[in-house]
Amino acid sequence: MLNRRDFLIGGSIIAGTSLLSGCSKSQFEDKSININRNKKVKMKLATSWPDNFPIMGTGVSNFANRVREVSGGSIDIEVYGKNRLVPALAVFDVASSGGIDIFHSGPYYWKGKNPAISIFGGVPFGMTFTENMSWFKNGGGYDLWREIYDRYNLYPLLGGNTGPQMGGWFRKKIDSIDDLKGLKMRIPGLGGELFSRLGVNPILLPAGDIFTALERGTIDASEWVGPALDMKMGFHKVAKYYYSGWTEPASVLELTFNKQSWQKLSKEQQIMIKLVSNEMNTDMLYNFQSENAIALEKLSQNRDVQISAFPDDVIATAKIEYSKLIDQFVSENSDFAKVWKSYSKFLEQNRDWSGLSSRNYLNARD
Amino acid sequence: MLNRRDFLIGGSIIAGTSLLSGCSKSQFEDKSININRNKKVKMKLATSWPDNFPIMGTGVSNFANRVREVSGGSIDIEVYGKNRLVPALAVFDVASSGGIDIFHSGPYYWKGKNPAISIFGGVPFGMTFTENMSWFKNGGGYDLWREIYDRYNLYPLLGGNTGPQMGGWFRKKIDSIDDLKGLKMRIPGLGGELFSRLGVNPILLPAGDIFTALERGTIDASEWVGPALDMKMGFHKVAKYYYSGWTEPASVLELTFNKQSWQKLSKEQQIMIKLVSNEMNTDMLYNFQSENAIALEKLSQNRDVQISAFPDDVIATAKIEYSKLIDQFVSENSDFAKVWKSYSKFLEQNRDWSGLSSRNYLNARD
Repeated sequence: MLNRRDFLIGGSIIAGTSLLSGCSKSQFEDKSININRNKKVKMKLATSWPDNFPIMGTGVSNFANRVREVSGGSIDIEVYGKNRLVPALAVFDVASSGGIDIFHSGPYYWKGKNPAISIFGGVPFGMTFTENMSWFKNGGGYDLWREIYDRYNLYPLLGGNTGPQMGGWFRKKIDSIDDLKGLKMRIPGLGGELFSRLGVNPILLPAGDIFTALERGTIDASEWVGPALDMKMGFHKVAKYYYSGWTEPASVLELTFNKQSWQKLSKEQQIMIKLVSNEMNTDMLYNFQSENAIALEKLSQNRDVQISAFPDDVIATAKIEYSKLIDQFVSENSDFAKVWKSYSKFLEQNRDWSGLSSRNYLNARD
Repeated sequence: MLNRRDFLIGGSIIAGTSLLSGCSKSQFEDKSININRNKKVKMKLATSWPDNFPIMGTGVSNFANRVREVSGGSIDIEVYGKNRLVPALAVFDVASSGGIDIFHSGPYYWKGKNPAISIFGGVPFGMTFTENMSWFKNGGGYDLWREIYDRYNLYPLLGGNTGPQMGGWFRKKIDSIDDLKGLKMRIPGLGGELFSRLGVNPILLPAGDIFTALERGTIDASEWVGPALDMKMGFHKVAKYYYSGWTEPASVLELTFNKQSWQKLSKEQQIMIKLVSNEMNTDMLYNFQSENAIALEKLSQNRDVQISAFPDDVIATAKIEYSKLIDQFVSENSDFAKVWKSYSKFLEQNRDWSGLSSRNYLNARD
């Protein structure tokens, strides 16, 4: 850090009083400003989460309120939670065709449309929050995302982040990779594909059925999000072993506009929305951090639950299998190859710095 | 993570077409809005950094431009770099008395006024960026900061973050704590106080003199910031050993207003400035991340430079000494005791979650 003396370089200190003679009080002029370009706008936003879903659902309501506040009421966004206006996972298509103006969801869900999109949502063994945001901003990530979404008549903004997610709940202890063989685990997406290569049978189950399936032993394990949301599901009551994760190190949520709806906004309105989406992006991360910390503290008081990392051989094998999976996507899809080239280059460049700074620091501190 | 099937719970999917019949296109009305409250405002901002100082100086210019943009020109902030209008470290007092409206600096520099303020700037073995921001937002940190600054007629906002800083450059290898004894090291502040307890003689030197002192052996070591800014100083040319840090895990920069200047802004203007300060806060962090990664990549190609963590006994002893130092501040200053109680409670609560999530993740990934 710079120190006090650093400020004395290159010239003697000018006496405060003489200096301030030229420093008048700020001027608050009385002319009011008529921002003609800020037409009154009403927009419909549909989300993939229930209205009051912790952190994510409430985060979207806060976003709409904040936009109303900062725009002096000129931008009025009506929020429709999961299935109220549009089916939860139809939001992408409906916004694309102009049926709604905005949706809030995760790029994670659109890999069926184009596997490259899943990279924008975060990948196993991928970037941390800070790395990922730096890639969007300084590594070309945002440009690539905009380029691909443009084909769907959409304009994406960052809309939240879960931070690191947990690996999941297991009924039996996992001492080595052999213990995973044949286990029935509720785990969707790329994580599921990866675990299937480790011998697990990935199962898809609706959220409301997981607890009972885990309790009855119909499934042996389930992945969900992190301590705060997992404890609301009650998993700790029916599974004793809780493992930290590497499938979702910093899942990105999105606030995506129909392109024409975006373009109809004035320049100031667009900036207001970008600024509020940035606030939502970080607020959700900060809320996940503190809520997970509180939940984990409670969970740790439960002596029946054992919390740890997966054994080394599970992690090592998962890395190898993940690398093969990526090679397959790269060879099959040119968009994936293009986005992956940018993403992996940035990750390699940032891996050493994050290791030297964040990783060394956490290892030293704790 | 929630999966696709989770969205089908609690009711069948409504056919997209029938659903959308009630979903009209957004309405862009033509009434223009006259936001009378948004008076045209001119403000003077003085910083503690040169105008074009990388990341920090340019970040403040970006802030002023962004405020101008989002306010449709209604808020015009003139930025004065280091010593142009106010001596670099007089900005706190001058803003306090109303000579300027805003300053950009770091709480780090005001511990002489009140040691409690240094906690808001970040402390050795303290919180990471995400933990620290969560504390400000959800752990009462912001309220405590506002309460103390209010006594100085100031209103603080977050204005940037360096992320983790490095421990410093050494001319000789440090194999154990004994190698620190008697070394002359340029290191200011709390870090210097801590290193003096490890046997180092902390030296204060103006920035422009450090390189030559290190080259000639007048000093044996120097702390600065991180790879990006350190390489601009040329330290790698005259010191071979570069150690990762624990004195400044996430230094907070501030954007602080004279209280009357803040109160004269309309509610919308205040929110605009809060939103842009949040953008500046994260943008600087993201820029430090990517710039440090690029610099470290270059530095790693230099085979003369050895980069590592400090030996374990240095870290262990530093922790013990730091704890004694904190106890001393707590017993001497009631403000410090009050802020530390909140800070340390939040850190303890978040330490386990960060270990289980971020630390386990980085150790698994890399």
